[in-house]
Amino acid sequence: MSQPYVPTPRTRLVREADRAVYDREAAYRILDEGFLCHVGFVVDGQPFVIPTSYGRKDDSLYIHGSAASRMLRQLKDGVPVCVTVTLLDGLVLARSIFNHSMNYRSVVVLGKATLVDDPKEKVEALRLLSEHIIPGRWADSRQPNERELKATSVLRLPIEEFSAKVRSGPVVDDEADYSFPTWAGVVPLKMVAGTPIGDARLDPTIQVPPYVKRYSRSR
Amino acid sequence: MSQPYVPTPRTRLVREADRAVYDREAAYRILDEGFLCHVGFVVDGQPFVIPTSYGRKDDSLYIHGSAASRMLRQLKDGVPVCVTVTLLDGLVLARSIFNHSMNYRSVVVLGKATLVDDPKEKVEALRLLSEHIIPGRWADSRQPNERELKATSVLRLPIEEFSAKVRSGPVVDDEADYSFPTWAGVVPLKMVAGTPIGDARLDPTIQVPPYVKRYSRSR
Repeated sequence: MSQPYVPTPRTRLVREADRAVYDREAAYRILDEGFLCHVGFVVDGQPFVIPTSYGRKDDSLYIHGSAASRMLRQLKDGVPVCVTVTLLDGLVLARSIFNHSMNYRSVVVLGKATLVDDPKEKVEALRLLSEHIIPGRWADSRQPNERELKATSVLRLPIEEFSAKVRSGPVVDDEADYSFPTWAGVVPLKMVAGTPIGDARLDPTIQVPPYVKRYSRSR
Repeated sequence: MSQPYVPTPRTRLVREADRAVYDREAAYRILDEGFLCHVGFVVDGQPFVIPTSYGRKDDSLYIHGSAASRMLRQLKDGVPVCVTVTLLDGLVLARSIFNHSMNYRSVVVLGKATLVDDPKEKVEALRLLSEHIIPGRWADSRQPNERELKATSVLRLPIEEFSAKVRSGPVVDDEADYSFPTWAGVVPLKMVAGTPIGDARLDPTIQVPPYVKRYSRSR
Protein backbone atom coordinates (compact mmCIF):
# COMPACT_ATOMS: atom_id res chain seq x y z
CA MET A 1 0.00 0.00 0.00
CA SER A 2 1.33 3.43 -0.87
CA GLN A 3 0.42 6.52 1.10
CA PRO A 4 -2.81 8.47 0.42
CA TYR A 5 -2.52 11.51 -1.79
CA VAL A 6 -3.77 15.06 -1.44
CA PRO A 7 -3.48 17.26 -4.55
CA THR A 8 -1.61 20.57 -4.40
CA PRO A 9 -3.01 23.78 -5.97
CA ARG A 10 -0.76 22.97 -8.96
CA THR A 11 -2.21 19.50 -9.47
CA ARG A 12 -5.84 20.00 -8.43
CA LEU A 13 -7.92 19.91 -11.60
CA VAL A 14 -9.55 23.20 -12.50
CA ARG A 15 -11.76 21.97 -15.32
CA GLU A 16 -13.81 18.78 -15.58
CA ALA A 17 -13.10 17.99 -11.95
CA ASP A 18 -15.28 14.88 -12.29
CA ARG A 19 -12.51 13.39 -14.42
CA ALA A 20 -9.91 13.80 -11.70
CA VAL A 21 -8.31 10.75 -10.11
CA TYR A 22 -6.31 11.49 -7.00
CA ASP A 23 -5.95 7.86 -6.03
CA ARG A 24 -2.31 6.79 -6.15
CA GLU A 25 -3.04 3.16 -7.08
CA ALA A 26 -5.21 4.25 -10.03
CA ALA A 27 -2.48 6.61 -11.24
CA TYR A 28 0.08 3.79 -10.97
CA ARG A 29 -2.08 1.49 -13.09
CA ILE A 30 -1.97 4.14 -15.83
CA LEU A 31 1.79 4.58 -15.44
CA ASP A 32 2.28 0.82 -15.59
CA GLU A 33 0.25 0.36 -18.75
CA GLY A 34 2.19 3.06 -20.62
CA PHE A 35 5.91 3.26 -21.30
CA LEU A 36 6.14 6.43 -23.36
CA CYS A 37 6.11 9.72 -21.51
CA HIS A 38 6.52 13.34 -22.53
CA VAL A 39 9.06 15.19 -20.41
CA GLY A 40 8.74 18.95 -20.04
CA PHE A 41 11.60 21.20 -18.90
CA VAL A 42 12.50 24.85 -19.32
CA VAL A 43 15.60 26.36 -20.93
CA ASP A 44 15.89 30.17 -20.93
CA GLY A 45 12.14 30.51 -20.43
CA GLN A 46 11.33 28.21 -23.35
CA PRO A 47 9.55 24.95 -22.52
CA PHE A 48 10.70 21.79 -24.29
CA VAL A 49 8.61 18.62 -24.45
CA ILE A 50 10.52 15.48 -25.39
CA PRO A 51 9.16 11.94 -25.77
CA THR A 52 11.04 9.18 -24.01
CA SER A 53 10.45 5.84 -22.32
CA TYR A 54 10.17 5.38 -18.59
CA GLY A 55 9.85 2.77 -15.89
CA ARG A 56 8.25 2.86 -12.45
CA LYS A 57 9.16 1.26 -9.17
CA ASP A 58 7.26 2.07 -5.99
CA ASP A 59 6.91 5.84 -5.77
CA SER A 60 9.59 6.64 -8.36
CA LEU A 61 9.71 7.13 -12.10
CA TYR A 62 12.95 6.39 -13.94
CA ILE A 63 13.98 7.83 -17.27
CA HIS A 64 17.26 7.34 -19.09
CA GLY A 65 19.13 8.56 -22.11
CA SER A 66 22.47 9.45 -23.50
CA ALA A 67 24.60 11.30 -20.97
CA ALA A 68 25.34 13.71 -23.83
CA SER A 69 21.71 14.57 -24.64
CA ARG A 70 20.32 18.06 -24.14
CA MET A 71 17.48 16.76 -22.01
CA LEU A 72 19.56 14.63 -19.66
CA ARG A 73 22.19 17.33 -19.22
CA GLN A 74 19.45 19.80 -18.26
CA LEU A 75 17.48 17.53 -15.97
CA LYS A 76 20.34 16.17 -13.91
CA ASP A 77 20.85 19.64 -12.47
CA GLY A 78 17.60 19.26 -10.57
CA VAL A 79 15.47 21.68 -12.57
CA PRO A 80 11.66 21.52 -12.32
CA VAL A 81 10.28 18.89 -14.62
CA CYS A 82 6.86 17.64 -15.70
CA VAL A 83 6.40 14.06 -16.87
CA THR A 84 3.10 13.29 -18.58
CA VAL A 85 1.80 9.88 -19.64
CA THR A 86 -1.29 9.63 -21.84
CA LEU A 87 -3.16 6.51 -22.90
CA LEU A 88 -5.68 7.11 -25.65
CA ASP A 89 -8.73 4.85 -25.45
CA GLY A 90 -11.19 6.17 -27.98
CA LEU A 91 -12.91 8.90 -29.93
CA VAL A 92 -16.27 10.01 -28.57
CA LEU A 93 -18.58 11.15 -31.36
CA ALA A 94 -21.41 13.19 -29.89
CA ARG A 95 -24.33 14.57 -31.88
CA SER A 96 -23.07 18.12 -31.38
CA ILE A 97 -19.53 19.13 -32.35
CA PHE A 98 -19.20 20.76 -28.93
CA ASN A 99 -19.72 17.50 -27.02
CA HIS A 100 -17.20 15.50 -29.05
CA SER A 101 -14.51 14.18 -26.78
CA MET A 102 -11.87 11.52 -26.31
CA ASN A 103 -11.60 8.66 -23.88
CA TYR A 104 -8.17 8.72 -22.31
CA ARG A 105 -6.25 8.20 -19.11
CA SER A 106 -3.41 10.54 -18.23
CA VAL A 107 -1.04 11.22 -15.38
CA VAL A 108 0.97 14.40 -14.81
CA VAL A 109 3.90 14.27 -12.38
CA LEU A 110 5.65 17.45 -11.25
CA GLY A 111 8.98 17.51 -9.46
CA LYS A 112 12.72 17.52 -9.71
CA ALA A 113 14.70 14.60 -11.05
CA THR A 114 17.95 13.44 -9.52
CA LEU A 115 20.80 11.56 -11.16
CA VAL A 116 21.13 7.92 -10.15
CA ASP A 117 24.88 7.62 -9.85
CA ASP A 118 25.51 4.70 -7.55
CA PRO A 119 26.61 2.01 -10.07
CA LYS A 120 24.52 -0.77 -8.52
CA GLU A 121 21.39 1.38 -8.29
CA LYS A 122 21.96 2.53 -11.88
CA VAL A 123 22.04 -1.03 -13.26
CA GLU A 124 18.97 -1.84 -11.19
CA ALA A 125 17.16 1.23 -12.59
CA LEU A 126 18.07 0.20 -16.14
CA ARG A 127 16.74 -3.29 -15.40
CA LEU A 128 13.48 -1.75 -14.12
CA LEU A 129 13.18 0.39 -17.23
CA SER A 130 13.79 -2.59 -19.51
CA GLU A 131 11.35 -4.82 -17.60
CA HIS A 132 8.73 -2.04 -17.57
CA ILE A 133 8.83 -1.85 -21.39
CA ILE A 134 9.38 -5.54 -22.27
CA PRO A 135 8.95 -7.79 -19.23
CA GLY A 136 11.32 -10.75 -19.54
CA ARG A 137 13.77 -9.11 -21.90
CA TRP A 138 16.57 -8.10 -19.50
CA ALA A 139 17.76 -11.63 -18.69
CA ASP A 140 17.82 -12.55 -22.40
CA SER A 141 20.03 -9.63 -23.45
CA ARG A 142 23.74 -8.93 -23.38
CA GLN A 143 24.12 -6.89 -20.18
CA PRO A 144 25.48 -3.33 -20.19
CA ASN A 145 29.26 -2.98 -19.91
CA GLU A 146 31.23 -0.20 -18.18
CA ARG A 147 31.52 1.94 -21.30
CA GLU A 148 27.78 1.69 -21.98
CA LEU A 149 26.89 2.50 -18.38
CA LYS A 150 29.13 5.56 -18.55
CA ALA A 151 27.42 6.73 -21.73
CA THR A 152 23.96 6.39 -20.15
CA SER A 153 22.37 8.71 -17.62
CA VAL A 154 19.52 7.52 -15.44
CA LEU A 155 17.25 9.94 -13.60
CA ARG A 156 14.86 9.28 -10.78
CA LEU A 157 11.73 11.39 -10.30
CA PRO A 158 9.80 10.89 -7.07
CA ILE A 159 6.05 10.56 -7.66
CA GLU A 160 5.03 13.06 -4.99
CA GLU A 161 3.08 15.82 -6.69
CA PHE A 162 0.82 14.43 -9.40
CA SER A 163 -2.64 14.34 -10.89
CA ALA A 164 -4.47 11.85 -13.04
CA LYS A 165 -7.40 12.42 -15.35
CA VAL A 166 -9.68 9.82 -16.87
CA ARG A 167 -12.52 10.12 -19.36
CA SER A 168 -14.28 6.85 -20.17
CA GLY A 169 -17.65 5.59 -21.26
CA PRO A 170 -20.28 6.78 -23.70
CA VAL A 171 -21.29 10.01 -25.39
CA VAL A 172 -22.88 12.70 -23.26
CA ASP A 173 -25.07 14.94 -25.39
CA ASP A 174 -27.30 17.86 -24.46
CA GLU A 175 -30.84 16.54 -23.97
CA ALA A 176 -32.15 18.54 -26.94
CA ASP A 177 -29.57 16.98 -29.25
CA TYR A 178 -30.57 13.33 -28.83
CA SER A 179 -33.08 13.71 -31.64
CA PHE A 180 -30.47 15.14 -34.04
CA PRO A 181 -30.28 12.62 -36.90
CA THR A 182 -26.65 11.52 -36.88
CA TRP A 183 -24.64 8.53 -35.73
CA ALA A 184 -23.22 8.86 -32.22
CA GLY A 185 -20.98 6.55 -30.26
CA VAL A 186 -17.43 5.63 -29.42
CA VAL A 187 -14.63 4.48 -31.70
CA PRO A 188 -12.29 2.48 -29.43
CA LEU A 189 -8.58 3.04 -30.03
CA LYS A 190 -5.85 0.72 -28.90
CA MET A 191 -2.12 0.37 -29.33
CA VAL A 192 -1.52 -3.16 -30.60
CA ALA A 193 1.58 -5.18 -31.39
CA GLY A 194 1.93 -6.64 -34.87
CA THR A 195 3.79 -9.75 -35.98
CA PRO A 196 7.40 -9.57 -34.76
CA ILE A 197 10.00 -9.02 -37.49
CA GLY A 198 13.12 -11.09 -36.81
CA ASP A 199 16.45 -9.45 -37.52
CA ALA A 200 18.03 -10.32 -40.89
CA ARG A 201 21.10 -11.72 -39.12
CA LEU A 202 19.08 -13.75 -36.61
CA ASP A 203 20.25 -17.34 -35.99
CA PRO A 204 17.33 -19.33 -37.51
CA THR A 205 17.38 -21.85 -34.64
CA ILE A 206 16.38 -19.09 -32.17
CA GLN A 207 12.64 -19.03 -31.46
CA VAL A 208 10.56 -15.92 -30.90
CA PRO A 209 10.34 -15.63 -27.09
CA PRO A 210 6.88 -15.60 -25.42
CA TYR A 211 7.32 -12.00 -24.19
CA VAL A 212 7.64 -10.95 -27.84
CA LYS A 213 5.00 -13.27 -29.27
CA ARG A 214 2.37 -12.21 -26.74
CA TYR A 215 3.45 -8.60 -26.32
CA SER A 216 0.66 -6.49 -24.87
CA ARG A 217 0.38 -3.48 -22.61
CA SER A 218 -2.83 -4.58 -20.90
CA ARG A 219 -2.04 -5.28 -17.26
CA MET B 1 4.94 23.68 -51.70
CA SER B 2 5.84 25.24 -48.36
CA GLN B 3 9.07 27.13 -47.81
CA PRO B 4 12.36 25.33 -47.02
CA TYR B 5 13.38 25.11 -43.40
CA VAL B 6 16.62 25.82 -41.59
CA PRO B 7 16.83 24.67 -37.94
CA THR B 8 17.67 27.13 -35.18
CA PRO B 9 20.17 26.32 -32.41
CA ARG B 10 17.13 25.39 -30.27
CA THR B 11 15.77 22.89 -32.78
CA ARG B 12 18.98 21.47 -34.27
CA LEU B 13 19.38 17.94 -32.93
CA VAL B 14 22.32 17.48 -30.59
CA ARG B 15 22.20 13.70 -30.30
CA GLU B 16 21.53 11.10 -32.97
CA ALA B 17 21.69 13.75 -35.66
CA ASP B 18 21.15 11.03 -38.27
CA ARG B 19 17.57 10.79 -37.03
CA ALA B 20 16.87 14.46 -37.71
CA VAL B 21 14.33 15.46 -40.32
CA TYR B 22 14.38 19.13 -41.20
CA ASP B 23 12.12 18.71 -44.21
CA ARG B 24 8.85 20.54 -43.72
CA GLU B 25 6.78 18.15 -45.84
CA ALA B 26 8.03 15.14 -43.85
CA ALA B 27 7.22 16.90 -40.56
CA TYR B 28 3.72 17.69 -41.86
CA ARG B 29 3.10 14.03 -42.75
CA ILE B 30 3.82 13.19 -39.09
CA LEU B 31 1.58 15.99 -37.84
CA ASP B 32 -1.21 14.85 -40.18
CA GLU B 33 -1.08 11.22 -39.06
CA GLY B 34 -1.32 12.15 -35.37
CA PHE B 35 -4.02 14.12 -33.60
CA LEU B 36 -2.85 13.98 -29.99
CA CYS B 37 -0.14 16.42 -28.95
CA HIS B 38 1.53 17.27 -25.67
CA VAL B 39 1.59 20.99 -24.99
CA GLY B 40 4.31 22.38 -22.75
CA PHE B 41 4.11 25.77 -21.04
CA VAL B 42 5.65 27.38 -17.97
CA VAL B 43 3.90 28.79 -14.89
CA ASP B 44 6.11 30.31 -12.18
CA GLY B 45 9.13 28.40 -13.45
CA GLN B 46 7.32 25.07 -13.41
CA PRO B 47 6.77 23.34 -16.76
CA PHE B 48 3.38 21.73 -17.39
CA VAL B 49 2.79 19.16 -20.14
CA ILE B 50 -0.85 18.61 -21.07
CA PRO B 51 -2.26 16.22 -23.69
CA THR B 52 -4.77 17.64 -26.12
CA SER B 53 -5.92 17.21 -29.71
CA TYR B 54 -4.81 19.45 -32.56
CA GLY B 55 -5.38 20.15 -36.22
CA ARG B 56 -3.09 21.52 -38.90
CA LYS B 57 -3.69 23.78 -41.86
CA ASP B 58 -0.82 25.04 -43.99
CA ASP B 59 1.88 26.32 -41.64
CA SER B 60 -0.32 26.53 -38.55
CA LEU B 61 -1.31 24.21 -35.74
CA TYR B 62 -4.64 24.74 -34.01
CA ILE B 63 -5.52 23.63 -30.52
CA HIS B 64 -8.70 24.28 -28.61
CA GLY B 65 -10.22 23.83 -25.21
CA SER B 66 -12.44 25.32 -22.60
CA ALA B 67 -11.97 29.06 -22.30
CA ALA B 68 -11.87 28.41 -18.53
CA SER B 69 -9.04 25.87 -18.60
CA ARG B 70 -5.70 26.58 -16.94
CA MET B 71 -3.84 25.79 -20.16
CA LEU B 72 -5.91 27.95 -22.48
CA ARG B 73 -5.89 30.88 -20.07
CA GLN B 74 -2.08 30.69 -19.88
CA LEU B 75 -1.41 30.21 -23.56
CA LYS B 76 -3.62 32.94 -24.93
CA ASP B 77 -1.32 35.50 -23.33
CA GLY B 78 1.34 34.61 -25.88
CA VAL B 79 3.72 32.76 -23.60
CA PRO B 80 6.38 30.46 -25.09
CA VAL B 81 4.95 27.06 -25.84
CA CYS B 82 6.21 23.71 -27.09
CA VAL B 83 3.90 21.34 -28.93
CA THR B 84 5.17 17.79 -29.40
CA VAL B 85 3.58 15.03 -31.46
CA THR B 86 4.90 11.47 -31.18
CA LEU B 87 3.89 8.44 -33.24
CA LEU B 88 5.16 5.17 -31.83
CA ASP B 89 5.94 2.56 -34.50
CA GLY B 90 7.70 -0.26 -32.70
CA LEU B 91 10.02 -1.70 -30.12
CA VAL B 92 13.52 -2.50 -31.34
CA LEU B 93 14.99 -5.47 -29.48
CA ALA B 94 18.74 -5.54 -29.96
CA ARG B 95 21.02 -8.27 -28.65
CA SER B 96 22.55 -5.85 -26.13
CA ILE B 97 20.41 -3.93 -23.66
CA PHE B 98 22.30 -0.79 -24.69
CA ASN B 99 21.20 -0.96 -28.33
CA HIS B 100 17.52 -1.47 -27.56
CA SER B 101 15.50 1.34 -29.09
CA MET B 102 12.10 2.37 -30.36
CA ASN B 103 10.88 3.18 -33.82
CA TYR B 104 9.02 6.45 -33.71
CA ARG B 105 8.34 9.68 -35.53
CA SER B 106 8.12 12.91 -33.60
CA VAL B 107 7.79 16.63 -34.23
CA VAL B 108 8.58 19.42 -31.78
CA VAL B 109 7.22 22.90 -32.52
CA LEU B 110 8.36 25.92 -30.51
CA GLY B 111 6.65 29.27 -30.57
CA LYS B 112 3.94 31.48 -29.20
CA ALA B 113 0.26 30.78 -29.69
CA THR B 114 -2.29 33.45 -30.45
CA LEU B 115 -5.99 33.48 -29.75
CA VAL B 116 -8.21 33.07 -32.81
CA ASP B 117 -10.93 35.58 -32.00
CA ASP B 118 -12.49 36.48 -35.31
CA PRO B 119 -15.78 34.49 -35.16
CA LYS B 120 -15.58 33.25 -38.76
CA GLU B 121 -11.95 32.19 -38.42
CA LYS B 122 -12.77 30.50 -35.11
CA VAL B 123 -15.51 28.33 -36.62
CA GLU B 124 -13.21 27.52 -39.53
CA ALA B 125 -10.44 26.51 -37.09
CA LEU B 126 -12.87 24.28 -35.19
CA ARG B 127 -13.89 22.70 -38.48
CA LEU B 128 -10.22 22.06 -39.32
CA LEU B 129 -9.66 20.49 -35.92
CA SER B 130 -12.70 18.26 -36.28
CA GLU B 131 -11.79 17.22 -39.82
CA HIS B 132 -8.19 16.57 -38.79
CA ILE B 133 -9.34 14.08 -36.14
CA ILE B 134 -12.36 12.51 -37.92
CA PRO B 135 -12.52 13.51 -41.59
CA GLY B 136 -16.16 13.74 -42.64
CA ARG B 137 -17.61 14.29 -39.20
CA TRP B 138 -18.15 18.05 -39.17
CA ALA B 139 -20.96 18.12 -41.73
CA ASP B 140 -22.78 15.28 -39.92
CA SER B 141 -22.84 17.01 -36.54
CA ARG B 142 -24.95 19.66 -34.91
CA GLN B 143 -22.92 22.82 -35.47
CA PRO B 144 -21.61 24.96 -32.58
CA ASN B 145 -23.95 27.67 -31.33
CA GLU B 146 -23.03 31.11 -29.91
CA ARG B 147 -22.87 29.89 -26.31
CA GLU B 148 -20.62 26.97 -27.24
CA LEU B 149 -18.33 29.15 -29.31
CA LYS B 150 -18.01 31.54 -26.39
CA ALA B 151 -17.08 28.70 -24.04
CA THR B 152 -14.38 27.46 -26.42
CA SER B 153 -10.97 29.03 -26.99
CA VAL B 154 -9.02 28.28 -30.14
CA LEU B 155 -5.31 28.98 -30.41
CA ARG B 156 -3.13 29.14 -33.48
CA LEU B 157 0.56 28.27 -33.33
CA PRO B 158 2.64 29.07 -36.41
CA ILE B 159 4.89 26.16 -37.45
CA GLU B 160 8.02 28.24 -37.81
CA GLU B 161 10.62 26.82 -35.43
CA PHE B 162 10.45 23.05 -35.35
CA SER B 163 12.36 19.80 -35.55
CA ALA B 164 11.37 16.27 -36.43
CA LYS B 165 13.06 13.04 -35.46
CA VAL B 166 12.53 9.63 -36.99
CA ARG B 167 13.91 6.21 -36.07
CA SER B 168 12.81 3.39 -38.34
CA GLY B 169 14.02 0.06 -39.58
CA PRO B 170 15.85 -2.87 -38.03
CA VAL B 171 18.07 -3.50 -35.03
CA VAL B 172 21.58 -2.10 -35.10
CA ASP B 173 23.87 -4.16 -32.86
CA ASP B 174 27.59 -3.89 -32.20
CA GLU B 175 29.38 -6.27 -34.56
CA ALA B 176 30.63 -8.42 -31.67
CA ASP B 177 27.08 -8.93 -30.39
CA TYR B 178 25.61 -10.56 -33.50
CA SER B 179 26.71 -13.97 -32.21
CA PHE B 180 25.01 -13.43 -28.82
CA PRO B 181 22.36 -16.18 -28.62
CA THR B 182 19.12 -14.24 -28.22
CA TRP B 183 16.18 -13.25 -30.36
CA ALA B 184 16.50 -9.82 -31.97
CA GLY B 185 14.11 -7.87 -34.11
CA VAL B 186 11.29 -5.37 -34.15
CA VAL B 187 7.85 -5.60 -32.55
CA PRO B 188 5.66 -3.27 -34.65
CA LEU B 189 3.21 -1.12 -32.70
CA LYS B 190 0.17 0.55 -34.15
CA MET B 191 -2.81 2.50 -32.92
CA VAL B 192 -5.87 0.74 -34.31
CA ALA B 193 -9.58 1.45 -34.18
CA GLY B 194 -11.87 -1.25 -32.81
CA THR B 195 -15.51 -1.94 -33.63
CA PRO B 196 -17.56 1.24 -33.15
CA ILE B 197 -19.90 1.22 -30.15
CA GLY B 198 -23.18 2.93 -31.01
CA ASP B 199 -24.72 5.16 -28.36
CA ALA B 200 -27.47 3.54 -26.25
CA ARG B 201 -29.94 6.20 -27.39
CA LEU B 202 -29.02 5.91 -31.08
CA ASP B 203 -31.91 5.81 -33.56
CA PRO B 204 -31.63 2.21 -34.87
CA THR B 205 -32.32 3.32 -38.45
CA ILE B 206 -29.08 5.34 -38.50
CA GLN B 207 -26.19 3.49 -40.14
CA VAL B 208 -22.55 3.64 -39.02
CA PRO B 209 -20.99 6.21 -41.38
CA PRO B 210 -18.00 5.18 -43.55
CA TYR B 211 -15.63 7.58 -41.74
CA VAL B 212 -16.36 5.66 -38.53
CA LYS B 213 -16.43 2.17 -40.05
CA ARG B 214 -13.10 2.62 -41.80
CA TYR B 215 -11.44 4.89 -39.26
CA SER B 216 -7.67 4.86 -39.64
CA ARG B 217 -4.82 7.32 -39.13
CA SER B 218 -2.70 6.04 -42.03
CA ARG B 219 -2.50 8.77 -44.63
